[in-house]
Amino acid sequence: MATKPSIPKGTRDFSPAEVSKRNYILSIIRAHFEQYGYQPIETPSFENSDTLMGKYGEEGDRLIFKILNSGNYFYNKNKIELPPTLESLQIKDADSISVEERISLNKFTAKISEKALRYDLTVPFARYVVQHQNEIEFPFKRYQIQPVWRADRPQKGRFREFYQCDADVVGSTSLWQEVELIQLYDSVFSALGLEGVTIKINNRKILSGIAEVIGASDKLIDFTVALDKLDKIGEDGVKKEMMEKGISEEALQKVQPLFHFTGSIQEKIEKLATLLASSQEGMKGIEELRFICENVTRLGLQKSILDLDVTLARGLNYYTGAIFEVSAPTGVAMGSIGGGGRYDDLTGIFGLKNMSGVGISFGLDRIYLVLEELNLFPDTVATSTKVLFLNYGVSQAFEAMQTIKKLRSQGIKVELYPDAAKIDKQFKHAERRAIPFVVKEIVETKFSLKNLKTGTQTQVDFNQLLEEVTTK
Amino acid sequence: MATKPSIPKGTRDFSPAEVSKRNYILSIIRAHFEQYGYQPIETPSFENSDTLMGKYGEEGDRLIFKILNSGNYFYNKNKIELPPTLESLQIKDADSISVEERISLNKFTAKISEKALRYDLTVPFARYVVQHQNEIEFPFKRYQIQPVWRADRPQKGRFREFYQCDADVVGSTSLWQEVELIQLYDSVFSALGLEGVTIKINNRKILSGIAEVIGASDKLIDFTVALDKLDKIGEDGVKKEMMEKGISEEALQKVQPLFHFTGSIQEKIEKLATLLASSQEGMKGIEELRFICENVTRLGLQKSILDLDVTLARGLNYYTGAIFEVSAPTGVAMGSIGGGGRYDDLTGIFGLKNMSGVGISFGLDRIYLVLEELNLFPDTVATSTKVLFLNYGVSQAFEAMQTIKKLRSQGIKVELYPDAAKIDKQFKHAERRAIPFVVKEIVETKFSLKNLKTGTQTQVDFNQLLEEVTTK
Repeated sequence: MATKPSIPKGTRDFSPAEVSKRNYILSIIRAHFEQYGYQPIETPSFENSDTLMGKYGEEGDRLIFKILNSGNYFYNKNKIELPPTLESLQIKDADSISVEERISLNKFTAKISEKALRYDLTVPFARYVVQHQNEIEFPFKRYQIQPVWRADRPQKGRFREFYQCDADVVGSTSLWQEVELIQLYDSVFSALGLEGVTIKINNRKILSGIAEVIGASDKLIDFTVALDKLDKIGEDGVKKEMMEKGISEEALQKVQPLFHFTGSIQEKIEKLATLLASSQEGMKGIEELRFICENVTRLGLQKSILDLDVTLARGLNYYTGAIFEVSAPTGVAMGSIGGGGRYDDLTGIFGLKNMSGVGISFGLDRIYLVLEELNLFPDTVATSTKVLFLNYGVSQAFEAMQTIKKLRSQGIKVELYPDAAKIDKQFKHAERRAIPFVVKEIVETKFSLKNLKTGTQTQVDFNQLLEEVTTK
Repeated sequence: MATKPSIPKGTRDFSPAEVSKRNYILSIIRAHFEQYGYQPIETPSFENSDTLMGKYGEEGDRLIFKILNSGNYFYNKNKIELPPTLESLQIKDADSISVEERISLNKFTAKISEKALRYDLTVPFARYVVQHQNEIEFPFKRYQIQPVWRADRPQKGRFREFYQCDADVVGSTSLWQEVELIQLYDSVFSALGLEGVTIKINNRKILSGIAEVIGASDKLIDFTVALDKLDKIGEDGVKKEMMEKGISEEALQKVQPLFHFTGSIQEKIEKLATLLASSQEGMKGIEELRFICENVTRLGLQKSILDLDVTLARGLNYYTGAIFEVSAPTGVAMGSIGGGGRYDDLTGIFGLKNMSGVGISFGLDRIYLVLEELNLFPDTVATSTKVLFLNYGVSQAFEAMQTIKKLRSQGIKVELYPDAAKIDKQFKHAERRAIPFVVKEIVETKFSLKNLKTGTQTQVDFNQLLEEVTTK
């Protein structure tokens, strides 16, 4: 036990100051989720493995944390088949094992582990909706704020345990929900004091339309990835990359306007309408975009900017309609601080068909970093204890405790220094913890109150004390 | 995928109503923790196995959920030694395996798993204090509200995932902290509307004193277990059981007053003082009890009762001073709803000596059941959305959205029914979700507002609408 204890890589301890700041963000997100009619649910930290496995692709399956069967169960109930190749697997690299070896290993894992930690909040939500479909009144607007776990390689800003904050509505195809979700983003970020957040919107059907027009649905991802580099490598660079990926010059000619895709949202929509006139799906996407953007614009946003970004292709595998992504204000180097979209068949994986869902997610860790960088956490967030009563021994400590009790009943955060230590030490304690007020001697009904910020010391009665520590 | 999805046994989904009620309890606990100067920390859901293993006894080790090493790590980095007896273990019962077999199995487990889910909040807190000792200003008052996991056999009221809500202070031996923790229990339960909660207190040193007096330190647990049955099996029954356990009749004679241990706390303390006069440690315990009880009594409790219970022996293995346990008001059949105590060497297991700690814990699940049984959840807890605007099609929906935006900016929880469905269906939706107000037609600046509780319908302007839904 001589070695200093540590925590697993990719995980974090949060200090009081950090928890307070995180809770400040979460409380604002939560309050707005509820104003918009979203209701909270919570699901277990671990699910049956078959609920999660196969839902996030092969990469996802590998990144899911699996829990070892426990107690008797582990070696009693299951007849464990040892993988014949396990011995050899030990010395191999993950990327070099054969398909047979992987299957064998997966089988072995499945035998000794039947539960796994939540990987995101969407699959558990889909499972919840299907399992409780008879108790749920649809359309169902739910929010969920819980940690998820991923066995990703830890790196700056990427952790193995982190919170997701999701709001989704399921059971309606109404586009008013897309309108509301954009307003919700704006409300939260405005309440957090963030000016100039950009809420980017796109539509999967627009992307399909572009693919149709360039005559290559299979090149869609290559196309958007390359187009996204326009700022960095310029029009010629992008076109060069596209042609290398097998997109013809003729196809590029057809979507030439995308290389100078500027102007207001309305102008962009009109450009797209011309471009995608021949694609039925594309035109459906334009109709959806128009409804959403027009209504958002007419209703007005507070401090955020709405923008149409045709290169936005996140979640291309599952989104079927709107796609959202939020980026921090210009000047703050940070990836997206939120994202979401519509998926037409949310619960199909669990056997409940025709349940369209649309939702958004807030990236707590990144929002935290943005607020920190822009110095937007209110001072009050950091303030924990407001008043420290010094301890001069049992008899005065008792008098202090009487007053402390009264202050606490008024909601004031207040403490007695627990030991009758040297007064100097007690003062240092207040300073180190940034406690703004110290009560020294109590003589009859008078308190010696010291304001540690200003250094002033006054004699006050209880009401003055209460007023002083409440207002400053 | 035809089978209905389910969750692992011992885990729970929480519906919106349940989450709201749980959050109501947690918000009151949290607010009082902070009034008393406790600061929040959070630790990772999983710790390195060696942080947890061996800290909870052999039983605890078995109940800790272990996480399988993931990705490459599993089969690459570690040279896994297969347990020679694994084949035979598969068909054995956990209780019948030999020591060698268990060691072999434990070695195997340690090879394939290096992380484990948090089993309680105390060990991670001790680890946190040692790891961050240079950043912490002592005495350190911390609270922590997070889930823990135990592979216990699930049964009524016992789950494999549940929240713990702990407040502990470390780095001071002052008994004012015990005084405060009793006040804290009282403040929280009073704020929750619970009348007549009993906060029971005992002291490990009293128990040691009794053991000294009966001349058998090794029989202490047998003694307290038997004494605890006084209500059920009477004095003769208890004495019979004690003698069967090897406690002599002469010893019982010496502690005869414990069989009629009634009266005020002060009377009980005086009885104990006589009884334990020959035990130095016992008298130290009495001195501590006297300080705590006298000050708590003089400062006064709100709705709770303080009682001295010499049979209280929870955590006998680690508590060294005060022991607390809280029981629900008389008439509610429920085990303890809280407990705690002082441990002189909290962080010793991680190499930091002489750190005395004292803390208490709140049992969220049981408090929930008590409030439910006594019907003490305020109506406002269940109220989610306050107003539903009916949807008559795009044009009126837009007008509704304009008003909704204004109401939300006032903090009102309000929704638009997303689809222009039949009005009857929209009304049913409001009823099923217990939304109290519905706004029907909007004509110019007038709203048809229906109160679903009273059935009354009125024509109101915006200010009247705001007032109506805010006040009722």
